[in-house]
Amino acid sequence: MRTSLDCLPCIVRQAVDASRMVMADEPTVLKIMKIVFERLACLNLSATPPEIVREVHAVIRRELHDVDPFLSIKKKSTQRALDIAGSAKVAIESAGNPFAAAVAFSIAGNILDFGMRSEWNEALIAESFSKALECSLKFDDTALARFHDEIATADMVLVLGDNAGEAVFDRLLIEHFPRRKKVFYAVKSSPVINDATREDAVEASIAEVAEIIANGADIPGTMLGECSEEFLRIFHTADVVISKGQGNFETLNEAKRKIWFLFQVKCPVIAKHYAYSVGDWMILEKSRNDSGCTKPLR
Amino acid sequence: MRTSLDCLPCIVRQAVDASRMVMADEPTVLKIMKIVFERLACLNLSATPPEIVREVHAVIRRELHDVDPFLSIKKKSTQRALDIAGSAKVAIESAGNPFAAAVAFSIAGNILDFGMRSEWNEALIAESFSKALECSLKFDDTALARFHDEIATADMVLVLGDNAGEAVFDRLLIEHFPRRKKVFYAVKSSPVINDATREDAVEASIAEVAEIIANGADIPGTMLGECSEEFLRIFHTADVVISKGQGNFETLNEAKRKIWFLFQVKCPVIAKHYAYSVGDWMILEKSRNDSGCTKPLR
Repeated sequence: MRTSLDCLPCIVRQAVDASRMVMADEPTVLKIMKIVFERLACLNLSATPPEIVREVHAVIRRELHDVDPFLSIKKKSTQRALDIAGSAKVAIESAGNPFAAAVAFSIAGNILDFGMRSEWNEALIAESFSKALECSLKFDDTALARFHDEIATADMVLVLGDNAGEAVFDRLLIEHFPRRKKVFYAVKSSPVINDATREDAVEASIAEVAEIIANGADIPGTMLGECSEEFLRIFHTADVVISKGQGNFETLNEAKRKIWFLFQVKCPVIAKHYAYSVGDWMILEKSRNDSGCTKPLR
Repeated sequence: MRTSLDCLPCIVRQAVDASRMVMADEPTVLKIMKIVFERLACLNLSATPPEIVREVHAVIRRELHDVDPFLSIKKKSTQRALDIAGSAKVAIESAGNPFAAAVAFSIAGNILDFGMRSEWNEALIAESFSKALECSLKFDDTALARFHDEIATADMVLVLGDNAGEAVFDRLLIEHFPRRKKVFYAVKSSPVINDATREDAVEASIAEVAEIIANGADIPGTMLGECSEEFLRIFHTADVVISKGQGNFETLNEAKRKIWFLFQVKCPVIAKHYAYSVGDWMILEKSRNDSGCTKPLR
């Protein structure tokens, strides 16, 4: 999807908040913001929001002389996720529909995102996980069965990871895939915000259930034009592609292949455009030629 | 007050919303935003927020080739205010403390502001006026009596106007000043957002109760360094200065004279800095050397 004019204040807010979250002092934040404004003066609204956000975070990294300013936040997220994972696993396995519960915890994990919301909000994190089981009961049974069956008959599944920490719950989902199969878990090739890189995915024990593959880019989403040949081969040949997070949705909702999107709706622009609500948990089935994604399983 | 980094997303949002409110199409809004970003790349945080907002609106006026793009919105505001004024006058005159009620309606009128909120929200406008009498009962009696007595003993009062429409209720307040006196009503010298100019003040019948004086500037606030000599002479010699609206507060809260500020708190930066809440109705007494304005009459 292209960037909306309504994204601009939010991108500017993210730049200020992210700079502060990674401990930049006021003069440094101001310096970062001036460069960000210079870039925005050459704005092209046909770019997706994650492409613009990538530019912002490249400025933050360069000005802070830090290739991974969110490293400690990513480690804290992964640790917090690992703390929750044990009880989540028990909850999933004792649920009426363990697959639905695993899907719900994977979406719950999407709260561990510090792009849209640049602060650690423990209450919000706790709430997201506490309502996972309840949310799993609200999924549309027919569509969920279709999602399950497509994975069941697949020989190769590609999961497009999103944030560090969230990956811990994606592992639980992969563990509850029906039938053993080849699973790839795609991560960013180099750090951007708190998106999972190979190192973060390894810390989340993804390597035990899937082959980790870097997508070739540092965009907080998946722009196919910037991905590696190796990634694209897997993306186009996988029987099922599961895309986590809003950034992947924003960059892939017009892609020419079937994709299942799992994410929490975090912004009013997306909510308004697709008639969702901020905070909605989405399981979206996008067919090959569908760019609207108008079939939420709510 | 200087501009906070937290003001930046809000200034960008105001620029997008204001451009749309005055009917700019998407390519024009984008063109405006690119120029706004160019200006923000040279940002100086020692400027007050209204100085930066002035720049934004100068860009909007220039790109739209329209010296007063908010003209129709100002006329609508004044008409709406005149519609309400009759019943407001009856309510003020039958109130236990008509002066307090007149102050409250003048603050209620501050809702007719399309800088911070670039949309006509009829429900919010109706709510603001419906709660005026109730709010007047909550004012601190001692401080309100001091405000009343200072006006009572003054020979010359200067009211710094804010928005068109709001001026209609400032007229009601001036009518309820104790004892006849010379009253000046300051307006902007040329259009900026929906701030009242001489023409707007005349439409609000201000000329019948006060001498209208243009302040010499087009800033949505009062930057003394940019005001005319004539205005400054009145500002410094008036026995009482009453400042309407948050923009005047942001530009005058460190001025070296006693000022009474009447406004609705419209932004979280102001609310946080002074420990108010967004939506609070403020009557602030600032002494000559006080720049904190920490004595809200709530």
